[in-house]
Amino acid sequence: MTLHTESLRDHACLTVHGPDQAGLVAAVTALITRNKGNIVSLDQYSSDPEGGDFFQRVVFHRPDLQAALPDIQDDVAKTLKPYGMEHRLTDQSIPKRMAILASTSDHCLLELLWRHRRGELPVTIPMVISNHTNTAEDVRSFGIPFFHVPSQGPDKSAAEARIVELLAGNVDFVVLARYMQILSDSFLEKVGVPVINIHHSFLPAFIGAAPYRKAWERGVKLIGATSHYVTKDLDEGPIIEQDVARVTHAHTAADLQARGAYVERAVLSRAVQWHAEDRVIRHGNHTIVFA
Amino acid sequence: MTLHTESLRDHACLTVHGPDQAGLVAAVTALITRNKGNIVSLDQYSSDPEGGDFFQRVVFHRPDLQAALPDIQDDVAKTLKPYGMEHRLTDQSIPKRMAILASTSDHCLLELLWRHRRGELPVTIPMVISNHTNTAEDVRSFGIPFFHVPSQGPDKSAAEARIVELLAGNVDFVVLARYMQILSDSFLEKVGVPVINIHHSFLPAFIGAAPYRKAWERGVKLIGATSHYVTKDLDEGPIIEQDVARVTHAHTAADLQARGAYVERAVLSRAVQWHAEDRVIRHGNHTIVFA
Amino acid sequence: MTLHTESLRDHACLTVHGPDQAGLVAAVTALITRNKGNIVSLDQYSSDPEGGDFFQRVVFHRPDLQAALPDIQDDVAKTLKPYGMEHRLTDQSIPKRMAILASTSDHCLLELLWRHRRGELPVTIPMVISNHTNTAEDVRSFGIPFFHVPSQGPDKSAAEARIVELLAGNVDFVVLARYMQILSDSFLEKVGVPVINIHHSFLPAFIGAAPYRKAWERGVKLIGATSHYVTKDLDEGPIIEQDVARVTHAHTAADLQARGAYVERAVLSRAVQWHAEDRVIRHGNHTIVFA
Amino acid sequence: MTLHTESLRDHACLTVHGPDQAGLVAAVTALITRNKGNIVSLDQYSSDPEGGDFFQRVVFHRPDLQAALPDIQDDVAKTLKPYGMEHRLTDQSIPKRMAILASTSDHCLLELLWRHRRGELPVTIPMVISNHTNTAEDVRSFGIPFFHVPSQGPDKSAAEARIVELLAGNVDFVVLARYMQILSDSFLEKVGVPVINIHHSFLPAFIGAAPYRKAWERGVKLIGATSHYVTKDLDEGPIIEQDVARVTHAHTAADLQARGAYVERAVLSRAVQWHAEDRVIRHGNHTIVFA
Repeated sequence: MTLHTESLRDHACLTVHGPDQAGLVAAVTALITRNKGNIVSLDQYSSDPEGGDFFQRVVFHRPDLQAALPDIQDDVAKTLKPYGMEHRLTDQSIPKRMAILASTSDHCLLELLWRHRRGELPVTIPMVISNHTNTAEDVRSFGIPFFHVPSQGPDKSAAEARIVELLAGNVDFVVLARYMQILSDSFLEKVGVPVINIHHSFLPAFIGAAPYRKAWERGVKLIGATSHYVTKDLDEGPIIEQDVARVTHAHTAADLQARGAYVERAVLSRAVQWHAEDRVIRHGNHTIVFA
Repeated sequence: MTLHTESLRDHACLTVHGPDQAGLVAAVTALITRNKGNIVSLDQYSSDPEGGDFFQRVVFHRPDLQAALPDIQDDVAKTLKPYGMEHRLTDQSIPKRMAILASTSDHCLLELLWRHRRGELPVTIPMVISNHTNTAEDVRSFGIPFFHVPSQGPDKSAAEARIVELLAGNVDFVVLARYMQILSDSFLEKVGVPVINIHHSFLPAFIGAAPYRKAWERGVKLIGATSHYVTKDLDEGPIIEQDVARVTHAHTAADLQARGAYVERAVLSRAVQWHAEDRVIRHGNHTIVFA
Repeated sequence: MTLHTESLRDHACLTVHGPDQAGLVAAVTALITRNKGNIVSLDQYSSDPEGGDFFQRVVFHRPDLQAALPDIQDDVAKTLKPYGMEHRLTDQSIPKRMAILASTSDHCLLELLWRHRRGELPVTIPMVISNHTNTAEDVRSFGIPFFHVPSQGPDKSAAEARIVELLAGNVDFVVLARYMQILSDSFLEKVGVPVINIHHSFLPAFIGAAPYRKAWERGVKLIGATSHYVTKDLDEGPIIEQDVARVTHAHTAADLQARGAYVERAVLSRAVQWHAEDRVIRHGNHTIVFA
Repeated sequence: MTLHTESLRDHACLTVHGPDQAGLVAAVTALITRNKGNIVSLDQYSSDPEGGDFFQRVVFHRPDLQAALPDIQDDVAKTLKPYGMEHRLTDQSIPKRMAILASTSDHCLLELLWRHRRGELPVTIPMVISNHTNTAEDVRSFGIPFFHVPSQGPDKSAAEARIVELLAGNVDFVVLARYMQILSDSFLEKVGVPVINIHHSFLPAFIGAAPYRKAWERGVKLIGATSHYVTKDLDEGPIIEQDVARVTHAHTAADLQARGAYVERAVLSRAVQWHAEDRVIRHGNHTIVFA
């Protein structure tokens, strides 16, 4: 949870998950020790000690990490092979490259740009893509490239192709910051990196258009937001973070929407930060979040 | 929001709602003044000043209220008739009579009994009815009658008839404190008083049996509870109060259920208190809550 | 709580407070009716029906308000004179003029500018004054004048005089958005309008420099922020709003500061909005907030 | 966070803390592996990888734990000796013995008894001691011994001696559930086990008698509660947990006290549960809480 203005030089993050087995933690920690790493933080979770799943995130400090990383990588693969675990080893000092897709709403977009500028998100932002132009000036004032990819008519394939072309090879994950276009299954495949979304309220309630109006008509006392990974099941992907705000009968549907915007930007920001820091492990339709 | 250990003697509560019209507030306040009342608190809400609905709750102090109440009642009816408003005038020093229906779970039941004993709920509790016997001793230790009405087999009509018989004329409202039997439409008609329910989580999500397990399988980061008035549309009645608690991947389905229990008892208690204090006005499928 | 993108044309807000007396609400509502107003919302609070204090906020719609306002103002003064009440009548469609004083931190400043641009704060912002220059470009990108008034050395009187000169006659209230200079008593007198401040954490805990470090050393599990009116008793003025965020042992002092920044901007924004909408009545060292 | 209705048989908890050193995690995990343990959960925190402090909590499953525990204990001591670490190894299936000290207020006391009965606190409760008698019947209805130790006059030493006599050898920790007597330094020494307290609000604010009245006079918008370990510095011991509830101008001082009671019981319950589960490590005037 350390701020990214502090140095993360020579810090590596190793995440491991798969079927739980005796000796796993010992194997991983011995591996780090023999590679001259000193463990800074370790989070571990087993869904069930007998026949369950195992999840671990270890951050370790290793002088001259950059030079040693390939060797450590080899050792990790060799060590974990007999256990059949998935794993990922990253150099924490190398920020992930994050693209943002947006539409007219600016609240999630600007919050991310602003937190990034404050040094609170360990990412670079190579581009913002929008199907509208209204945020272009704001985005560029942060020194970040803005691309306009209009999305008109029923056929979105040309727009999607253009977006894939922009993203390909340039980004490590994509954030839909209130991007109001439905993406095709093939988009997800082609883009090939994790995509994080934010949606209003508590699905499956208030599906479809005008959700805040529907929530208002139902007389809810709380409104919420959920950030999740995008999968083929629209808005049903693994949840990363959720939060709510209290409302009363005296709020209009427009008030709900305004309050909801503040919940959305906070929830999405936390989800993005945790993803960027390798704190989120996907498992089936769940997430394990070592926040 | 004053505690009920303090005297509410000579305090009346008038609630008024209906189509908004110019002069309504003035008419009501003039009425109170000419009946020698001094307004203690006044809450008012208009959904729209032009063509909307008007909701008001006024508490006023009036010496010798009990003697004057019938006259004031007449004046209220006469004054509000031209406006076509619904209204209710109550003596705040007379607690409402609340029956509780429960099953095996005791968390909501005991919370209500305990808050009542602390003087925080302005109600009397003439009876607790349960389709199980496990809470009998606890209930009676609070000095409250306990009736066992078993509910076996597919035909619930005999059990319902017995419950209606117990309630008839004896209660002003009914609370379902995790009562796990579905009540028939005709029960609601026969019982003839408001019925308040508490349910787990955020409907329409996780409908049916084992909701906490379903929420756990979905990997939610928040669990919630909703208290609402019971209508013929099961669990779709006007919402009175909602709240949530935060959970993580490390919680089991049983943990979610345990945490949910604490949210449920808090949400139901607030809903009951607000109802008992005439703070809730039902309007279509909404509530206006002057909390 | 209606958003300010909706029209507030022909809406007036009347706040009244002073010693509680029988008939006050009736007098006020009759006054509005005879001036052709229709009450949109009315909030009222009495600290004690016998010998306590009375607080009221009424918003009413009155066609052609602007033309009628002077007459209504006279009627209000005449009507309330016998009761000895303080009162204030404002045209809700005329935004208050708000100056912001800031230092190097931008989180509170940018949040206010951004909410203002979204139409969520019913104010105009004639100027931002800072003793530093780092935010000048950001402020001006919102189309708002930026004035640099450096504050060096022990004698602040010249800087204060310059600020008073800029503010005089131009603003209705001042917001200290993490302005890190202590203002003299005479500044408050000369500026002659309400001044709203935000401070970290829960005073009187962690007074003085490096409060987040002190809170971290104390091992707190919550950090908070408080927005209040500035009085001669530094940081002891009437509280408008407070909130907290949860922290753990794993957060560094820098993390606490970063999280605190998000609480601060939310708390200050709410306080500013409520003040701008005439929802806050000061009474001794308290506030009554009809939020 | 698993509920204690599930079996904790053959589960051990090892906590380790002291100066951070390379290889510590590896040493501990190797130790568990060679003792035939399978790690169920592991939480670890280092205040600083270079020259900081290290804190770890490991829960592991080990068949036939009870027979093996002495050997494992020896191995732990031998293994950690060169590192100079403090450590504690416990059998998770053996509940801690918790005494409760109370006065007239019942909210914290009953909450603990009730959660215990629900199987949510992994403790036994050998006794409740009170300087009043009003809760005797309630306590005994839970099947728990109640001892009345009156505390009158300025000399509390006889009462303290009597309490120490009751506790000696019988309890693993003590909870002050709104116990309104100040305990002497020598009491803490003689009792020789951790003592957990709950206090209202945010100290150092509102010190002394009638804190809720003072908070009300100050016009606070939040009230809180803090649970901490008792040290010689009254109410300044290491914080375990804190929380708040929102209040408004419309709440009386009595309302604040009533709402505060609900925060107090929730905060104390969480602190007690975490302590009982060995989730809290004390370090100077801090706590590390692996919740």
